[in-house]
Amino acid sequence: MGDEHIKKAALVSIGNELLNGKTVDTNAAYIAGRLRTISLPVVSVHTAPDEQPAIERTLALAAREADIVVATGGLGPTDDDVTRQAFAGFLGVELVLRPELLEKLKEFFDRRGIEMPARNSIQACVPQGASAIENNMGTAPGIWAWKDGKRLFALPGVPAEMRHMFDTQVLPELRPLVGGQAIAVRRLKCFGAGESKVAERIGDAMERGRNPLVNCTVHAGIISLEVVASAADRPEAEKMAEREECSLRTALGQLVYGTNDQTLAEVVGEALVRTGQTLAVAESCTGGLLAELITDIPGSSRYFTYGWVTYSNEAKCTELEVPREMIDMHGAVSEQVARAMAQGARRKAGTDYAVAITGIAGPGGGSEQKPVGLVYIAVDNRDGTDTSRYIFSFDRSSVRLRAAQTALNTLRLKLNLTGPVPI
Amino acid sequence: MGDEHIKKAALVSIGNELLNGKTVDTNAAYIAGRLRTISLPVVSVHTAPDEQPAIERTLALAAREADIVVATGGLGPTDDDVTRQAFAGFLGVELVLRPELLEKLKEFFDRRGIEMPARNSIQACVPQGASAIENNMGTAPGIWAWKDGKRLFALPGVPAEMRHMFDTQVLPELRPLVGGQAIAVRRLKCFGAGESKVAERIGDAMERGRNPLVNCTVHAGIISLEVVASAADRPEAEKMAEREECSLRTALGQLVYGTNDQTLAEVVGEALVRTGQTLAVAESCTGGLLAELITDIPGSSRYFTYGWVTYSNEAKCTELEVPREMIDMHGAVSEQVARAMAQGARRKAGTDYAVAITGIAGPGGGSEQKPVGLVYIAVDNRDGTDTSRYIFSFDRSSVRLRAAQTALNTLRLKLNLTGPVPI
Repeated sequence: MGDEHIKKAALVSIGNELLNGKTVDTNAAYIAGRLRTISLPVVSVHTAPDEQPAIERTLALAAREADIVVATGGLGPTDDDVTRQAFAGFLGVELVLRPELLEKLKEFFDRRGIEMPARNSIQACVPQGASAIENNMGTAPGIWAWKDGKRLFALPGVPAEMRHMFDTQVLPELRPLVGGQAIAVRRLKCFGAGESKVAERIGDAMERGRNPLVNCTVHAGIISLEVVASAADRPEAEKMAEREECSLRTALGQLVYGTNDQTLAEVVGEALVRTGQTLAVAESCTGGLLAELITDIPGSSRYFTYGWVTYSNEAKCTELEVPREMIDMHGAVSEQVARAMAQGARRKAGTDYAVAITGIAGPGGGSEQKPVGLVYIAVDNRDGTDTSRYIFSFDRSSVRLRAAQTALNTLRLKLNLTGPVPI
Repeated sequence: MGDEHIKKAALVSIGNELLNGKTVDTNAAYIAGRLRTISLPVVSVHTAPDEQPAIERTLALAAREADIVVATGGLGPTDDDVTRQAFAGFLGVELVLRPELLEKLKEFFDRRGIEMPARNSIQACVPQGASAIENNMGTAPGIWAWKDGKRLFALPGVPAEMRHMFDTQVLPELRPLVGGQAIAVRRLKCFGAGESKVAERIGDAMERGRNPLVNCTVHAGIISLEVVASAADRPEAEKMAEREECSLRTALGQLVYGTNDQTLAEVVGEALVRTGQTLAVAESCTGGLLAELITDIPGSSRYFTYGWVTYSNEAKCTELEVPREMIDMHGAVSEQVARAMAQGARRKAGTDYAVAITGIAGPGGGSEQKPVGLVYIAVDNRDGTDTSRYIFSFDRSSVRLRAAQTALNTLRLKLNLTGPVPI
C-alpha cells in the first residue's frame, strides 16, 4: 500500500438491490467525491448483499485495506436489514438498546400521528461501546465505532439521509484525522485526437507512482485528463498542479478545449458571447443533435438564432437554396452540398457564422464510395467557407454524436483564430 | 453461501474514476441485471483502482466468493490501464502477443486512415492460455479464462462496448452453465402518468413475493414495468408472463406505448411508416431535441423530412410565417404561436403531420404569468390543429426532454385515433 503516512478510506455498499441490477450505487461515488475534498483517497468499494456473514466479511476486508471504513445501507427496520447486527458481530460485541434513541424514534412517529411499529425498536440499538449518528430525516440513526485504531461508520442507504448525515456529522469528524496532507486537482478536457495520441504527446506524465499523477478517461470522444498533486500543504500542492497543467497545455496545444465539466458547446458559446457574434446551423444526418447541444446551454439564445434540420433533399433546396443540380451531380452527402448548406443558412439567418453537417449515419444508405460514417462539415463566415471530410464509426448514435462534436470543435478552432483570445 | 448447487457471480469494476467520485459505476448494475435474466445471482461487487496489485487482490477475492467473475475496465492502451497485466498476474502466467489480434487492431486504424500508435499493441496481448473476446466497437478486446474451475472474464469499461460484448459473447457462454429453473420476462413501457398513478391502476400486481413479480422503474418520465415469471419450465413461465402482461395492458390502456426498449420516437415512426404518412417539426425551447429523438431512429428519413429550430422570434416569422403581430400580442410562448408554428411547418414542408413546441426551458426567462417550464405543444394535420399547455419541472434539461417526449406522445395518441390500429 506504499506510503504509511497517507490515511486511506474504503467504502462498503450494502443491499440486495445493488446486486440484482435494479439500483445503481450512487452513494459510493458521492462519498468518494466528498472525501476527496479533504484529501482522503478511497482505495476500494465493496458491495455486499443483505446477509450478516457476508457483511461481516466485507467489513473485515475493508478494514484491512483502509484506516477509515464507511458503510451504507441495511439500517432499516425490516427483517432484511442486518447491517446493525453485522456491525456488532464484526466488533465482537452485543447490540444494546439505547433508551434515548428509542425516545427519539417514538417522537418521530408521534409527530406523524402514528404509533411506532414494534419492529422499529431495533433502530434504537447500537453495538456496545459504539455511538449513534443522528438522522433528522428518517428513522435510522447511523453508527460509528473504533476498532484496532480504525474508524468505522455505518449510514442509511437512502441517498438524501445518507448525504445529510455524512456532510454534517461524518465529514467534520474525519477532517482533523487527515490533516497534514493536501491534494490539488486540475481537469483538462480535450477533443480532436484519440487517447493514444494524447498519451503520446504528454510523454511520461501518466506514469504510475508519479506526483502529480495524471489520469486519463474517455467519454464519447471527450478525453479528460485529471491532474492530482499531493504535497505537505495546500499552496505547495496547488503550485505543483498548476505547473503540471501548464506543461500539459503546452504539450497538447489546441487539443485542450476547456477545464472541469465544460462541454464543447459551452466553450463555443462563451467565445461567441465574448466576441458578440451569432450562429446558425443546418443539419442533415445529425438531425437536430447539433442544435440540441448548442441550445442545451442556458442563455444560448444570445447567439443562436436559426437551425434547420433539412433531412430530405427537397428541404435542402427549398430551405437552404442548395441547387437541385448540385445534389443530382454530387449527391446530398458531398463537400459541395455541405458548403452550400452552410452558405444558405448564414445568408438566410443573417448570422456571423453558420455550420452545416451532411453525412451517412447508417446503418443503411452506405456504398463503396460513400460508406456509412462519411460526414462533411462546413463552417461559413464572412471570410469564406471551410469544409472537412471525416469517416466516423461505430454505430448510428456514435456517428451522429462525433459529427456534431467535431462540428463544434471546428467552429471553436475557427473562433480562436479570428476572435480575441482570452488570457 | 448456502446452496451448493446454485452458481454465483461476482463483479469487479476497475478504474480510478470510480473511486474518486467522478464516475458512477453503471456497468455493475447492467451486468447484474443481465445475469438475473439467466437466474445467475451476483453475490458481490468490488471496485479496484488502476493498480496491478490491487486488481490482483480483488480478482482473488471475487474468485473466492463466486464461480463466475466478470471484471470491467482498465483494458485501454495507456499506461494507467493495467487490467490485462493483473489478469495475467492473477492467473500466474505471462502476457503473450497474439498476431491475429494485432492484425485486427491495425485494420481498425487502417479503416480510419491512421497509423496505429505503438502503444496500442499491448491490446493485442492476452494471458497465456486465455482467450480473447472480440470487440467490434473499439480497440480493446476482452479476455476470458478458466482458473481452478472458475470462469473469469475481463471486458472494457466503455459502457457501449462492454454491453455489446457482454450480450453477444459472455451471456451465451454462461447460459448453459446455469440451467435448471426457467424465467420469462416481459417489459412494458408507459408514458403519460406518474409512478403512483400507474401503481394505483395495476392494484396488487407489484406486491412482494408474488409470482409473476412486477417491478416498476422510472427513467426520464418513462415508466418501465418488468414482469418476471418463474416456473419449472420455459413454456409454463412464458404462459404466466403472457397472462400477466395481458392484464397489465387492460389496466393501463393508452398509457402503454410499447415493449422492451422501445422509445416513443420508435413507436411513432412505426405508425407513420405503417400508414404511409410524413412528419415535420418546428421547435423553439427544445432547440432540436425533438428532431434529434425522431432522427435517432434508423430509417426515419422515410417519414421525417423537415425540421426548424426557430430559436429567435425573427426565425419564427421568416421561416414559419408566424405573424409578427401575433408574437407582439401573445408572446412567443403562447397557444397561438404554437398553433401558427405547426401550421406554418406543415404548409411549408407539405407533410401529413407537423408538431410544434414553444416554451420556457429556463433557468431564466420566466415571469409570474409565464413561469419557467411553461410549454405549448401543437399537432397539425389535415383535420385541424390540437394544442395543449403544460408546466414541466425541474430544470432546463428535464423541461426540454419532457416537452419533446410529450410532443411525441401527443402525436402517438393522434395517430392511434386516425391511422389503422395494428393487431
